[in-house]
Amino acid sequence: MDISKRANTIQASPLRKLMPFADKAKEEGKKIYHLNIGQPDIKTPDAILNEYRNFAEEVLAYGPSQGLKLYRENLVNYYKRHGIEVNPDEIVVTTAGSEALIFAMMVTCDPGDEIIIPEPFYTNYNGFSTIADVKIVPLTTYAEEGFDLPDKKTIEAKITDKTKAILLCNPGNPTGKVYTPEEMKRVAELALEYDLFVISDEVYREFVYDDLSHTSIMDMEELQERAVMVDSISKRYSACGARIGCLISKNSDLIAATIKFAQARLCPPTIDQLAANAAIDIEQEYFVDVLQEYKNRREIVFNALQKIDDVVCIKPKGAFYVIAKLPIDNAENFVKWMLTDFDIDGETVMFAPAEGFYATPAMGRDEVRLAYVLNTESLKKAMQIFTEGLITYKKLKKEYND
Amino acid sequence: MDISKRANTIQASPLRKLMPFADKAKEEGKKIYHLNIGQPDIKTPDAILNEYRNFAEEVLAYGPSQGLKLYRENLVNYYKRHGIEVNPDEIVVTTAGSEALIFAMMVTCDPGDEIIIPEPFYTNYNGFSTIADVKIVPLTTYAEEGFDLPDKKTIEAKITDKTKAILLCNPGNPTGKVYTPEEMKRVAELALEYDLFVISDEVYREFVYDDLSHTSIMDMEELQERAVMVDSISKRYSACGARIGCLISKNSDLIAATIKFAQARLCPPTIDQLAANAAIDIEQEYFVDVLQEYKNRREIVFNALQKIDDVVCIKPKGAFYVIAKLPIDNAENFVKWMLTDFDIDGETVMFAPAEGFYATPAMGRDEVRLAYVLNTESLKKAMQIFTEGLITYKKLKKEYND
Repeated sequence: MDISKRANTIQASPLRKLMPFADKAKEEGKKIYHLNIGQPDIKTPDAILNEYRNFAEEVLAYGPSQGLKLYRENLVNYYKRHGIEVNPDEIVVTTAGSEALIFAMMVTCDPGDEIIIPEPFYTNYNGFSTIADVKIVPLTTYAEEGFDLPDKKTIEAKITDKTKAILLCNPGNPTGKVYTPEEMKRVAELALEYDLFVISDEVYREFVYDDLSHTSIMDMEELQERAVMVDSISKRYSACGARIGCLISKNSDLIAATIKFAQARLCPPTIDQLAANAAIDIEQEYFVDVLQEYKNRREIVFNALQKIDDVVCIKPKGAFYVIAKLPIDNAENFVKWMLTDFDIDGETVMFAPAEGFYATPAMGRDEVRLAYVLNTESLKKAMQIFTEGLITYKKLKKEYND
Repeated sequence: MDISKRANTIQASPLRKLMPFADKAKEEGKKIYHLNIGQPDIKTPDAILNEYRNFAEEVLAYGPSQGLKLYRENLVNYYKRHGIEVNPDEIVVTTAGSEALIFAMMVTCDPGDEIIIPEPFYTNYNGFSTIADVKIVPLTTYAEEGFDLPDKKTIEAKITDKTKAILLCNPGNPTGKVYTPEEMKRVAELALEYDLFVISDEVYREFVYDDLSHTSIMDMEELQERAVMVDSISKRYSACGARIGCLISKNSDLIAATIKFAQARLCPPTIDQLAANAAIDIEQEYFVDVLQEYKNRREIVFNALQKIDDVVCIKPKGAFYVIAKLPIDNAENFVKWMLTDFDIDGETVMFAPAEGFYATPAMGRDEVRLAYVLNTESLKKAMQIFTEGLITYKKLKKEYND
């Protein structure tokens, strides 16, 4: 009895194959600093957790398919604080950003259509594209250039008659890239010229450093009918387990269609929506503190990387990831080796080989992504181990090659 | 800027177009007894609600893509009580039954493949099939026959080289049908003969009346590699808003593939899984009481329908729905009329036209589905209004036609 071809081809999490090595290291008593996943350690605000604790209804009922009206009305205020004007009818609440991305692909593309995505990109876009039967056309960006968007001509060369959308992750996972207004303009021009949608995954909106301001897709006046924003509370409030996101668009046909997809699955989780709703009243002060914490972490990681010979890394401007190009051939082997063969006083570090974030074969093979999701003390320790590990590994490799 | 063709074609909820009539009736001060949706009024058990209230972690984190291990291990005990032997590795926790059904279609079928489903069927199967790009081939069953499965030859005639699975809803929404061991055997034989999967949506498992026993797809020894069970806590514990379901199979390739789909969306909601986990310890006594309540409700609805001239309705054996064939041409018009033109002392009833549950054009146009999800007192009142309404409507129609 054969399962489907798509079930055979859908990408398994690239990190998954490394888990047995991590499990084994733990079994052997090693402590692992996990810089491999985007699970923040920041405390979830009490406003959110209390909402779970205070649920007082007798029946845990379905909510509306578009999401609780109360929550959609309140979300408007959150976006207003960010200079984004939307109304509750332009919002579809989703089961996390994941579902919003699947919906965005399905309403903009038919099976076989193409979406252009700058690579390296969030690896689960691959899974969503298999689910939506959409082809991802990667637009390569480079560590050496801080993952800046290529010029117009280079992007243009990727557009075919199958292209329906350009998808940006801004601020970017795994790159930490924050697109400049000029880069956004470049994308907008192409969208107008070639009649494309622009899907913008802005789940890291709050995490922008160096007093940069974030340009949301909703800020682009000329893209009113073409902009699809994807959002989530997972990273914003360190509430990854709530699974509440949303899709926003000013294109009423697109929203009407998205609601039909949403009706099929009835509704997002009800109490989690109430929790997300409670989060909207959290003072901006909260983000100031959180941002300061992430800025400190970024300094620790970036400074450590800067000090290692032949490591290429431009300081990321947003999110909580950094990609580093390492002076080794195969980063995956290095990640494994750190788990199996290296430790300092019984401690080691796990991080992600970056190859899985590229769609172009062999790209990123010498790169890794570090997620700075641990407190500064742990992070200092982790980067010290990383540095020692890399130096030792390079030496070993050199001896082996000599 | 055009949205995709599939976004244009995905079915909107057939009930949705009736909502403006219900809203208007409410604005005019009418009270509506809602027998149109499967939202039970039964109190959600405290064991579930307390789990939300008692959440004590500091960070609301991602869970594993396959679902919390604790929950999967405990679920084994729930199924054991029903004579179903599964192990935790054979379970993938999903965001409600909806996601389990989408995964089931995607792992068994490639785009363009076919699934045979007895009609009338749960209308959202249409939406899932659009999402999965799978063609539903309806197998008509009839109100007059209590929605029994047709003979082997009739089913066989629906099988093509594109057929990958047969999907049963057992007990059935919207029919209340509980498949007999003989009917299950018929399906199993065909599955073996034609190399098909059998997907069984068993979310109404607990709601089986008249001392009948429920035959789960997992009970069919010969289907070990072909059986895919879909489940949900929504109806079982009146916890529709939790959005926790699962997909179960003993086919390890199928489970491995399902996990890959699950990885793309990271995980189901975390606290809701803990709540679902707490539900497993709920005594069987709970179901005895709930079942008695639903049995009483079924009697009220069925007896009322029996007393109306020319209404065809075989007593349903399970779930909490009944389909009735009415002596009128167009049930949708009748539903509308009940909202716009009829009331008794300012009260009326809303129910679902059954046509939306059929894929064969024009089938079910004279049928309605009543969900007995209100307490017995409300239900008595509702059925009295339904009866008076139908008699009045028939008379009006007759006068008009004469």
